[in-house]
Amino acid sequence: MAGSDLPKVLAFDVFGTVVDWRTSITAESADFLARIGRADLDPATFTDNWRRRYLTGMAAYAKSGRDFTILDVLHREMLDETLTDAGVDPATLDDALLQHWTFAWRRLAPWPDSVEGLTRLKGRFPIVTLSNGNIALMLEMARRDGLPWDAIMGAEVTRAYKPDPRAYLGTAKILGLSPQEVCLVAAHHSDLAAARACGLKTAFVSRPMEYGGRPAPDAKLAQDWEWSADSLIDLAEKLGC
Amino acid sequence: MAGSDLPKVLAFDVFGTVVDWRTSITAESADFLARIGRADLDPATFTDNWRRRYLTGMAAYAKSGRDFTILDVLHREMLDETLTDAGVDPATLDDALLQHWTFAWRRLAPWPDSVEGLTRLKGRFPIVTLSNGNIALMLEMARRDGLPWDAIMGAEVTRAYKPDPRAYLGTAKILGLSPQEVCLVAAHHSDLAAARACGLKTAFVSRPMEYGGRPAPDAKLAQDWEWSADSLIDLAEKLGC
Repeated sequence: MAGSDLPKVLAFDVFGTVVDWRTSITAESADFLARIGRADLDPATFTDNWRRRYLTGMAAYAKSGRDFTILDVLHREMLDETLTDAGVDPATLDDALLQHWTFAWRRLAPWPDSVEGLTRLKGRFPIVTLSNGNIALMLEMARRDGLPWDAIMGAEVTRAYKPDPRAYLGTAKILGLSPQEVCLVAAHHSDLAAARACGLKTAFVSRPMEYGGRPAPDAKLAQDWEWSADSLIDLAEKLGC
Repeated sequence: MAGSDLPKVLAFDVFGTVVDWRTSITAESADFLARIGRADLDPATFTDNWRRRYLTGMAAYAKSGRDFTILDVLHREMLDETLTDAGVDPATLDDALLQHWTFAWRRLAPWPDSVEGLTRLKGRFPIVTLSNGNIALMLEMARRDGLPWDAIMGAEVTRAYKPDPRAYLGTAKILGLSPQEVCLVAAHHSDLAAARACGLKTAFVSRPMEYGGRPAPDAKLAQDWEWSADSLIDLAEKLGC
């Protein structure tokens, strides 16, 4: 693609694209399940169920009419529901433990290429988050993992959750850019499709282990994205960084 | 001060505290005034008049009832007014030139100690902006100057301009912290006084050249702040960084 078609800012999905939520949440959930005496529950299944509630909740959020509520709070509500579904009454558990478990989403480890890839991309492009994670969550994660964001943007700044168009269009507007001057970088075809419908450029990063090796739920939404890479280092090379 | 009293996050005023607006705006305004054929106007006086409009505008903003409008837009309005006061009709000038002049506020140079001081402070504390500058402005400035913010916060995120209490309290809330867990770092007693009234901790950084060596307009508001330093490097040493 010609240099004139390069975006002015790269905006990143984070959960799954930059960090490996499933490995981190499974490991922490194994510990928490043991602490509440439920080591019989499979932590990977528990994690997948928790994440499934998130995906469903985000897709339905705009239509729900609910006032904007930060993801830390939603993650806690979804944890309580996931526990209830597993036969555990969260009201019987220590609130501080549940809060610490919820904040496992702030402690996700990056994919091995993420820090190097982001650092290289940052040399040429401003790199911002366009994530549904709230600012405090993203800030703690960035400091733990060394993710060198230029700015933390996304849901809390626009007060809209992806795939709501306001999340994408609001981020471009705040940056003072037209949608086509912003490129969403994401491992999820559903996210990229929503961004493209708003006029953003799109870069796909393949993360075959996001669901433990099983197909992603949005695999059928694949399109011919402007860029496609196997890692953030590969994306940096493809963008001339 | 005992370690237990240390803040959890350092939130920075930027204009005057981290960057030297007067030197940068005066130099750019000298060039722009020459380009519009008004090299007879003193660029430092022009700059001081522009900044005075800002200080007045911010102090009155909450009571004005105006919807939140980003600082890039307000800076442009204030430029037009400053030109009018100087006997120049901005309607006769090229709009692109006026926009470029306005964006001089994105191109301010840091004080000599700022990058090293912030980098050291960041080793121990999350460092965020708590500035009236909008996100796009702060993002461009940070990349030009190498200011290593963990997050860009402040007016646009809280939709309130300092010294409105909502700017300080909203920033703490978004961080998930109580006001006393956040320390405002600023060169301005007026800003620190407003932050203290909201319960934030306060750190004063002396910038005797902010007004070209003349006293700051809020000099009489000096108090005994929790910390007081001659530079951001000095502050880093006082906070054990």
